[in-house]
Amino acid sequence: MTDFATRLDRLAALAVRVGLNLQPGQELVMTSPVEALPLVRRIAVHAYQAGATLVTPLIGDDEVALARYRHAAPEAFDVAPGWLFEGMAQAFRGNAARLAVVGESPTLLAGQDPEKVARSNRARSIAYRPALELITSFAINWNLVPASTPGWAKEVFPGIPEDEAVAKLWDAIFAACRVDVADPVAEWAAHNARLHARTKYLNDKDFLELRYRGPGTDLTLGLADGHLWAGGAEPAKNGITCNPNIPTEEVFTTPHRLRVHGTVRSTKPLAYAGTLIEDIVVRFEEGRIVEAHASKGEEVLKKVLETDEGAARLGEVALVPHSSPISASGLLFRNTLFDENAASHIALGQAYTTCLRDSVGVPMDRLAARGANASLIHIDWMIGSGALDVDGVTKDGAVEPLMRAGEFVAV
Amino acid sequence: MTDFATRLDRLAALAVRVGLNLQPGQELVMTSPVEALPLVRRIAVHAYQAGATLVTPLIGDDEVALARYRHAAPEAFDVAPGWLFEGMAQAFRGNAARLAVVGESPTLLAGQDPEKVARSNRARSIAYRPALELITSFAINWNLVPASTPGWAKEVFPGIPEDEAVAKLWDAIFAACRVDVADPVAEWAAHNARLHARTKYLNDKDFLELRYRGPGTDLTLGLADGHLWAGGAEPAKNGITCNPNIPTEEVFTTPHRLRVHGTVRSTKPLAYAGTLIEDIVVRFEEGRIVEAHASKGEEVLKKVLETDEGAARLGEVALVPHSSPISASGLLFRNTLFDENAASHIALGQAYTTCLRDSVGVPMDRLAARGANASLIHIDWMIGSGALDVDGVTKDGAVEPLMRAGEFVAV
Repeated sequence: MTDFATRLDRLAALAVRVGLNLQPGQELVMTSPVEALPLVRRIAVHAYQAGATLVTPLIGDDEVALARYRHAAPEAFDVAPGWLFEGMAQAFRGNAARLAVVGESPTLLAGQDPEKVARSNRARSIAYRPALELITSFAINWNLVPASTPGWAKEVFPGIPEDEAVAKLWDAIFAACRVDVADPVAEWAAHNARLHARTKYLNDKDFLELRYRGPGTDLTLGLADGHLWAGGAEPAKNGITCNPNIPTEEVFTTPHRLRVHGTVRSTKPLAYAGTLIEDIVVRFEEGRIVEAHASKGEEVLKKVLETDEGAARLGEVALVPHSSPISASGLLFRNTLFDENAASHIALGQAYTTCLRDSVGVPMDRLAARGANASLIHIDWMIGSGALDVDGVTKDGAVEPLMRAGEFVAV
Repeated sequence: MTDFATRLDRLAALAVRVGLNLQPGQELVMTSPVEALPLVRRIAVHAYQAGATLVTPLIGDDEVALARYRHAAPEAFDVAPGWLFEGMAQAFRGNAARLAVVGESPTLLAGQDPEKVARSNRARSIAYRPALELITSFAINWNLVPASTPGWAKEVFPGIPEDEAVAKLWDAIFAACRVDVADPVAEWAAHNARLHARTKYLNDKDFLELRYRGPGTDLTLGLADGHLWAGGAEPAKNGITCNPNIPTEEVFTTPHRLRVHGTVRSTKPLAYAGTLIEDIVVRFEEGRIVEAHASKGEEVLKKVLETDEGAARLGEVALVPHSSPISASGLLFRNTLFDENAASHIALGQAYTTCLRDSVGVPMDRLAARGANASLIHIDWMIGSGALDVDGVTKDGAVEPLMRAGEFVAV
């Protein structure tokens, strides 16, 4: 077994060289929980070695975040750091790359007033929108990379000492991120080639809609007109090919905001803003969720769906084989970056306009006419399992088997 | 002895209640080294209890800063995070309060290329200027508060184990900040009253110039036309009375940028941007430094003086009794926040326009005609000691003794 420092350094190198593909002369804006500082320091070293001009870490702390819920006045929760988010957007407009180290406790805010959580999230979503649009439109190269933190590790490995849990989660992260091999960069080149073969197959088929059948699920999901499947490394508009997510196992595209019908059940809990939402069952009519239930966190789910008109419609659909390494680990990571790569999923809210052909420079209302959804939110949740079948329906009405028992049939 | 957690909490409360006098509805923008996180967390609690809407800590890390000097290309050092500094300025324009937790290692960058240090500082000064002007013009309430960090503590207490040094520096900080008393807030009210009596005396005298005599020092320092002495708690333009520095022992005003003559020798090392500059001797002619020497760090000093036209002229003059508690501690803190309150001092660079009567809304060129200096920099250095005599010269030419052997004669 390679020692921890070496594996941590490999993960940092992977985030910079493969995740961001950081280019000489770029600034790097990095967010991270304070517990991930050792990884942040190694990322800074690799970023400067890759030619970064300036690495600016924006370090978050759970205790400071909780102090607000414990002590601030109710009206405080309508305030967000717009000045900081606008600054980040300005950096991105200046071609800064964006890296987020992901390690939040999924239940940090579980005990807090859902009204405060919802107000705070709404204020942050509005303030962050200019920066987020630069990410979702893929204007710049960006990357999410995970780090084990006590708050997260205790949720994945309950009932064991904290330092053991943190070490076990690191092991799981290194395995899922494919840095436990001799040459992680070559491993990622092969992995990207497999994902690209899958997106080519789906784009050649150009399905009209997908049909899902599984326990509690009977869903017809129309795809946007001129949708484009993506997955693995992708070129950003600044010309830099990057891997936005480490790990990544999904291929994904844009559903049609008006053409989703039927019922779908979640297969894993959704960790959203510190709350765990479990056993989601929703029913769609003409693309909109008209009925929503959850065995836990239903109140938070319903508030999320009320965020704006687009929050109850879909912005993303993704397919992941049930045999993916993350799924094979048998762990529930309670973190979207992992769990979305353990199972096929859908996302409420904002569409990635890069998953539409000929979308560059086209105004949002014309993309909306093709089916692209708009919202302040973008929240993934898992619907895949070993019991899920998916068919593709072509434009001439042919029904083709796409996945059986959670696995791709053809690719 | 009160336990550490209680004293830390008292310092946090003092920073929020007395230092900032934070008001309900204000945002708080806080910078801090990562090692001071326990203080940051207590400050966040007190800030929210005082009615803050949002506390945003911007956490710095020495290792990330050093990674740049070790690995970045030379041209990287002309880049500064203008997007972040502009964001901070925007927050201040929206009435956010500003707190800086001070705990930098004074020699962090001592081994680095002075050219890179100078280029980085210059780029940061230019980018930070819009935000700094809101501080120096006292548009908002702001505060500096110290925290013991390993990097700083090892410089103050060399040759003892790191954890002992950190604990000893905390003890010195708590004593200097007057939180080791039963009621620190009442103690600070009395301390502010003493400083205000001193500024009233000096403002009533309205001296034309000060004359300094001491070992290596023979200096005539003209004061700006319509200068105003300040010290202790002051009202900011947003109407909030705050104590910008914790600790503070000085009274200070604006010198005349053209009317400084003679020679002055530093009495303590100047810690500037990670370099220690020692035994500074400079000669002024018509307000400008025409000759500069230092036994250590002379190259950095000379580069600083070349920053811009105003960098070799004075922007501040301050008087501190040699018997101040910080001076009495006998410690060299190697940090301006402390050492400037241990001795009388002068500052190169930008003037505080609030130390001029009737300056609100007056354009800088008219304030310059009254003697106010403009520069990208503002750097204090110590010239006071137990061997310094200072006279005040009134407008009708009378010479009055102001300080003898480092102590005020009248107040």
